[in-house]
Amino acid sequence: MSSYSKMESFFFRLHQIDHALAILGWDEAVMMPHGSGDSRAHALSELKVIRHEILMSNELLDLVQQLELQSEKSDKLSLWQKANLFEAKRMLTNARAVKSDLVKSISFASAKCEQTWRTLRGENNWNDFLPLISEVINLSREEADQRSEALGLSPYDCLLDLFSPGINESEISKVFTQVKSFLPDLIHKITERQKSINIIPPPDSIPIENQRTLGLDTMKILGFNFNKGRLDVSHHPFCGGVPEDVRITTRYSKSHFMESLEGIIHETGHALYDQNLPREFLTQPVGMARGMDIHESQSLLFEKYFGRNKSFIKFLIPFIKQHLSTEESSPFWNVENVLNYLNHVNPSLIRVNADEVTYPIHIILRFEIERDLIHKKIETQDIPEIWDMQMKKYLGINTKGNYKDGCMQDVHWPSGAFGYFPSYTLGSLIAAQIYSKIKIDLTQLDFDLQSGNLESIHEWLRTRIWSKGSLLSSSDLIRNATGEYLNPNFFKKYIEEKYLG
Amino acid sequence: MSSYSKMESFFFRLHQIDHALAILGWDEAVMMPHGSGDSRAHALSELKVIRHEILMSNELLDLVQQLELQSEKSDKLSLWQKANLFEAKRMLTNARAVKSDLVKSISFASAKCEQTWRTLRGENNWNDFLPLISEVINLSREEADQRSEALGLSPYDCLLDLFSPGINESEISKVFTQVKSFLPDLIHKITERQKSINIIPPPDSIPIENQRTLGLDTMKILGFNFNKGRLDVSHHPFCGGVPEDVRITTRYSKSHFMESLEGIIHETGHALYDQNLPREFLTQPVGMARGMDIHESQSLLFEKYFGRNKSFIKFLIPFIKQHLSTEESSPFWNVENVLNYLNHVNPSLIRVNADEVTYPIHIILRFEIERDLIHKKIETQDIPEIWDMQMKKYLGINTKGNYKDGCMQDVHWPSGAFGYFPSYTLGSLIAAQIYSKIKIDLTQLDFDLQSGNLESIHEWLRTRIWSKGSLLSSSDLIRNATGEYLNPNFFKKYIEEKYLG
Repeated sequence: MSSYSKMESFFFRLHQIDHALAILGWDEAVMMPHGSGDSRAHALSELKVIRHEILMSNELLDLVQQLELQSEKSDKLSLWQKANLFEAKRMLTNARAVKSDLVKSISFASAKCEQTWRTLRGENNWNDFLPLISEVINLSREEADQRSEALGLSPYDCLLDLFSPGINESEISKVFTQVKSFLPDLIHKITERQKSINIIPPPDSIPIENQRTLGLDTMKILGFNFNKGRLDVSHHPFCGGVPEDVRITTRYSKSHFMESLEGIIHETGHALYDQNLPREFLTQPVGMARGMDIHESQSLLFEKYFGRNKSFIKFLIPFIKQHLSTEESSPFWNVENVLNYLNHVNPSLIRVNADEVTYPIHIILRFEIERDLIHKKIETQDIPEIWDMQMKKYLGINTKGNYKDGCMQDVHWPSGAFGYFPSYTLGSLIAAQIYSKIKIDLTQLDFDLQSGNLESIHEWLRTRIWSKGSLLSSSDLIRNATGEYLNPNFFKKYIEEKYLG
Repeated sequence: MSSYSKMESFFFRLHQIDHALAILGWDEAVMMPHGSGDSRAHALSELKVIRHEILMSNELLDLVQQLELQSEKSDKLSLWQKANLFEAKRMLTNARAVKSDLVKSISFASAKCEQTWRTLRGENNWNDFLPLISEVINLSREEADQRSEALGLSPYDCLLDLFSPGINESEISKVFTQVKSFLPDLIHKITERQKSINIIPPPDSIPIENQRTLGLDTMKILGFNFNKGRLDVSHHPFCGGVPEDVRITTRYSKSHFMESLEGIIHETGHALYDQNLPREFLTQPVGMARGMDIHESQSLLFEKYFGRNKSFIKFLIPFIKQHLSTEESSPFWNVENVLNYLNHVNPSLIRVNADEVTYPIHIILRFEIERDLIHKKIETQDIPEIWDMQMKKYLGINTKGNYKDGCMQDVHWPSGAFGYFPSYTLGSLIAAQIYSKIKIDLTQLDFDLQSGNLESIHEWLRTRIWSKGSLLSSSDLIRNATGEYLNPNFFKKYIEEKYLG
């Protein structure tokens, strides 16, 4: 076996463990009985240790280093193989950057914090949450410091790199500063303009079974491959599983069928990316999705950009009405009303419920806090005050004493995922840029969307994004697909045209 | 860490991999989309290789050997720890007995044979099946020979030991010879006597949802812990998962609700054993269920012994009627009629549909064939002829040319599980013996069963069987629980009293 094949077999094994972890994780959220949490935690944690041991094996490191030397000297490896080697090296470097003891401590502390958070959030109990989240933050700082030492990047850049490879704090700051420069004014103008619009709410008593069928049939329209994936129900919607078996979830409420449908469209966007990753590299690092920023761009493209496109809404309204058994004649179903309903801008407390215009503000606020936490410029106990101050400043919303809907609302920090939040807004900006290019490239877009025919969109995305896996850096991927590097002006123009045009 | 703790940590890891394998296996049968089979096969197979590598590690072998020496010299280890060490050694010896290449070949050949069997069985296609099953049999013979060399037991005994540890061919032959000496005559007498009984069939159009609720509520009555387990649907009913998260399945048909209910009671018997294994040893060899023979005795106890006990049927009839919405006044519901329906003895083609009286014949026939196959006394192509001959001899049934409902009906041989079949009838004999002892020990049994109160039964089984894990050998477990070693006369008496009393 060649050195390259040997290296591949390590990642093949890693992929199979990831397969187990992904399905066990899905099962935990969707199927697992309540009392089995402890034993599942042990199983997941042990599999993660095994995964870590594989990544840390000296044999693998030797292989990768040897291949790097060969690769410099000769041209035996293809472009994809070289990219695979590059990504392999990146994974090894990241895995080796943190000491095993710390990995275990973080895993333990964040599991405990996340579990307890589920109860404490409901109780609005910041005091009991503080020592737990402090420990997670302190350990994350230590992790960032260890990574910084190994990688030669700043501590926070190291964490960012885990979720959105290739992007750093200074680029994000630059982009977010631009967004901050135009967004508050846009929010003000849009909310002022929307004041005069009278929105008729959607029918509010839709049987779950109808919603489920609507969701499944919408996924078919969007191109989800049910031969290699499922739709189920979980408390928090997510896209899980593996590219060969993608598991998306939603939650249903009789009175909010549009929320569930939009959630399904969002997760289907993630799923399409996963299901169309390069098949021949599925078990290898280069076959993985590029990063959470690109991933989020795909889900947002489908949820917000195509999903709320006027032509697609024209297709969707009769499609939805066919699936629902009640109130077909409601004035809600007027195209303009549906669009007004979906595009209602309203500064609010909760990130996951925020509209696309105010959403970046929620992210920028979190980015600024977590960056300063990791850089030890602020302390854990300062979070509520800063949160309240910034929510007032950016959105005019008071969160004083409301931890539940304030700084305790997200699972990310309790679970130790610092550096994740920026990927949401990066995804949103990337989606705007891609959408703008697709509108230019696909001259029949409106016609296709109004016919519920997404083939040309699939073809565009498959060629330029999905099938690329991790062949290119995020920046190059965006540039190759859209003709230029990440530029928040596409988002600005999109918002202006859509809401103020 | 002590050597003993070090050994424990190996088995802790093994248990977590078994957890992953069990849940992934359950998912494959219950949830997995059709097109994801290949990727799941890769994941399962890689996890099995990892599992094998752990069992084969020299460090573990050294630890076990070192502990054995210490254990002989000192009394540092508790009774349970010594039994754990003994079981650990047994696992290692079994794992090391077969060469890795052969393990792989068997795994590959049986996976292929089992997959193809699903189609070929439907087609009654023995000719195309023959080369595939021949390969599996030849490899199983080689496996048995390698095991024989390593363990110093006969080849077939080595295979038996994998499923029913501690029992061997000569004991089984003795027991089965006894069964053969009385059963054909009993079958004849019972079928003669039952000829005059007119059985009213059960209502045949019961909505699945009602059946599901009935199944769930019956499981509650039987003591299934839903906090650590689930009921779902699969093509073939099974009890899977791990002791901390037991997943049982059934299948529903509108026209056969009693079959589904009985299947649920059977699998719940398995589940109760798993859910009540000794908690403090769950991750260790000694914490595992004793063997498939004991396991089957528990499922049969609940399905056939308690489940068809007249007092329990008196409890069950109004309970079932409450759950079903149709035909409440049908004469089917007469207690005697329900018992006649459940206890109808009818020599038939298919093992899984056989009544409890003819069932052992199906097993004895298979035992005799697989024993002779492994001992190379007969060849694969001889199977159909022997099958037909013995079915005629034992049950008076012609299977000539009917491979589908003859020698191709079971998944065991195609999947390479030689040595498994005897555990079914051993389980049945053990169940009869336990049932007989419980009837003596629990003077209120009939009253309890008629009240749907199984607490005293639980207590009896928990103390004597479930909580023992693999502390004792099967023989000692049976003797400790019932006062004597395995004795098929309990089965004979049970059948005589029930059917001819």
